[in-house]
Amino acid sequence: MKQWLKETLDDLNLVDDMASAQGFTRLSYTAEEDDSIAVFKRKAEELGLSIREDEAGNVIASWEGSKPDLPTVASGSHLDTVVNGGGYDGVAGVLTALGAIKQLKDDGFTPEHSLEVIVFRSEESARFGVSTVGSKAMTGLLDESIGDVRDLENVTVKEAVQACGYNWSEFAKAERGPNDFKSFVELHIEQGTQIEDNGYDVGVVNGIATPIRLKVKAQGKAGHTGTTPMDKRNDAFVAIAPLVPYVQSFTKQLNEEQKTPVVATVSTVDLSPNVMNVIPDTVEIGIDIRSVDDDLKKRVADAIRGYVAKLEETSTTQFEIQELVNNTSILLDKDLRELLVQLGEDLDLQPLVMDSGAGHDVMNMSTKWPSGLLFIPCRDGLSHHPDEYATLDDLEKGVQMLATYYKNMSQSE
Amino acid sequence: MKQWLKETLDDLNLVDDMASAQGFTRLSYTAEEDDSIAVFKRKAEELGLSIREDEAGNVIASWEGSKPDLPTVASGSHLDTVVNGGGYDGVAGVLTALGAIKQLKDDGFTPEHSLEVIVFRSEESARFGVSTVGSKAMTGLLDESIGDVRDLENVTVKEAVQACGYNWSEFAKAERGPNDFKSFVELHIEQGTQIEDNGYDVGVVNGIATPIRLKVKAQGKAGHTGTTPMDKRNDAFVAIAPLVPYVQSFTKQLNEEQKTPVVATVSTVDLSPNVMNVIPDTVEIGIDIRSVDDDLKKRVADAIRGYVAKLEETSTTQFEIQELVNNTSILLDKDLRELLVQLGEDLDLQPLVMDSGAGHDVMNMSTKWPSGLLFIPCRDGLSHHPDEYATLDDLEKGVQMLATYYKNMSQSE
Repeated sequence: MKQWLKETLDDLNLVDDMASAQGFTRLSYTAEEDDSIAVFKRKAEELGLSIREDEAGNVIASWEGSKPDLPTVASGSHLDTVVNGGGYDGVAGVLTALGAIKQLKDDGFTPEHSLEVIVFRSEESARFGVSTVGSKAMTGLLDESIGDVRDLENVTVKEAVQACGYNWSEFAKAERGPNDFKSFVELHIEQGTQIEDNGYDVGVVNGIATPIRLKVKAQGKAGHTGTTPMDKRNDAFVAIAPLVPYVQSFTKQLNEEQKTPVVATVSTVDLSPNVMNVIPDTVEIGIDIRSVDDDLKKRVADAIRGYVAKLEETSTTQFEIQELVNNTSILLDKDLRELLVQLGEDLDLQPLVMDSGAGHDVMNMSTKWPSGLLFIPCRDGLSHHPDEYATLDDLEKGVQMLATYYKNMSQSE
Repeated sequence: MKQWLKETLDDLNLVDDMASAQGFTRLSYTAEEDDSIAVFKRKAEELGLSIREDEAGNVIASWEGSKPDLPTVASGSHLDTVVNGGGYDGVAGVLTALGAIKQLKDDGFTPEHSLEVIVFRSEESARFGVSTVGSKAMTGLLDESIGDVRDLENVTVKEAVQACGYNWSEFAKAERGPNDFKSFVELHIEQGTQIEDNGYDVGVVNGIATPIRLKVKAQGKAGHTGTTPMDKRNDAFVAIAPLVPYVQSFTKQLNEEQKTPVVATVSTVDLSPNVMNVIPDTVEIGIDIRSVDDDLKKRVADAIRGYVAKLEETSTTQFEIQELVNNTSILLDKDLRELLVQLGEDLDLQPLVMDSGAGHDVMNMSTKWPSGLLFIPCRDGLSHHPDEYATLDDLEKGVQMLATYYKNMSQSE
């Protein structure tokens, strides 16, 4: 199995060797994503699966069960990446699902429910700023207006999918019915270090922490850096800067008082005019707040609002807070989670029940079908980076988890 | 005179009316700068001046004196602007010098020393990041390597000057000899509010504060904003942010203890990767420090170095400080300054002896010839902005100052 995993990992990443200084760039609906999908199709066919593509370009590799009218048991993930990303984010889930099928085939197993391995298109937001396009289409969550969103080269989603041979106006047809799936489980690299830090083997996810995102704008007054005296300034950067360490220290403190983790980050800044000889006029910062506990997210957002009000009181700078995103966090299916923990323990693995700080295709699938999310460790928690790495041992544990999941769920009660 | 000033101001700015929402954009060595220079040539010819252009594109309008072998008495400024800049920065100096010539001609005056009005090319760094190209060429301070510097559209200085009809390899020939000028005085808008705040009419500049510029880089570690616990972060933005208010508060405090003004500004920031779901990895900030007192600049720079060392001690982030620029500040000619103050008082004007926080073409001229700098007030100190504004009254005071300067200096002793 390890040899097959290694070869298939290389092949899906379109390389002979995973050590790549630049990492991997397979943006949504590009020829590079197509190339990786073509490898997937070939690998799935080699395992005897039948292939179909839906209207959104999602690829579905099926193993027909002995009772093909029963709802399908599915797994899957994505093959697109960010710019100079890693070769495991997404690929790990596709690879281990294929590996699980291979193991069941090798064992001579016969499913009653049909099994599927799904490759979702366009999970990453790196190209269009919109994530999980393929799984949104499959669950009927796709907002049609996304078609007009443009990438940095001014290509719309509509044009990009057309160039890959799809038709945006047909995307809605990719939606599948409420009874199509018995369950869906995605495997993903953890993108954190909780499993490793706590001495476990795999993660079984309870909830997915979706963000509150705030944009805080400070409006000061420009002026020449050389001619404006220090006591006559309204420098927007000076006014807003204390908020950056505050977000960190407040949220760190809150974690010490709470069991459920909550994280908050000032991750973006846009300063105008951003030239050496002009005092900053306008500064906008972006804040990303996440927890599976929506109340904790709200507490951080409220604290930020309170702190900004104080900054405004003590300066001549004007502030404005905009809430960009506020999504209710997602709890995955309890029965499926408990089953995955049990199945893991039966394999003599130590599963850690944990939350996910990042979103994945399973978020969409879980709105319609019982869904679960498995994590395998990745080195140093590093992801979206050329050095992203998961061991073959951990990938093999992932194969075992998905094989036992497929096997267990494919039996009709 | 006011009517002539108003019309000529409009004409040099290539508009019928100075109220322009977008401001003025006449970048270095562009057709727009050429157009404004063409107006200057026409206006100077109307006043009976003879025109020549040097190898760098500087335009010299001359009034031959009765003793033409004596060194020339000159004034001038520039006609290029920043992007969406104002119509007075540069133009005010060219306009008032022409106005002074007009007044002397109207008065039937005959100079002994020849008089010149000079339009320097490419004073602003807005296009190429390099300032005062024309006056550097005239004083022999031009670094040849500047020819390969590129603008945002990848056009080199060499190519840009070629497109305007000049040859980069001939630029050095624009240099003038040590005995060519008796004196040079530039008039400029103040770009600050000291004249107005202190109830004076015009400014006579003592020293020009050139900057120390530092780049401070904080190197942390990227990570997913949703999956990296608060106590496992090395967030470069959190680490460096306290430096921003520190630069302001330290420098403000220093001004309260010192007579000579010193200013310091964190004016630029470059954050990487600057996306919502990744913890800031690298942050670079740019700091501009100015004073005519080089020791005060050094004290601010040293304080910043000390504070950064403290930040580094108390965090896991690594810091690096680079000194981009450290120019010795410039003291203008003492005799000429005292003369300008005297001449101003003789006109019943109140001249304020002050320092300049910004650099101008006169900085270069002063390295070779006795030079002075006059300021007229501009509304709210606003410059490099469409709302930049100086009254016709103040422009007329400028004309009077330059006329008395030309008149006084053009007499041989």
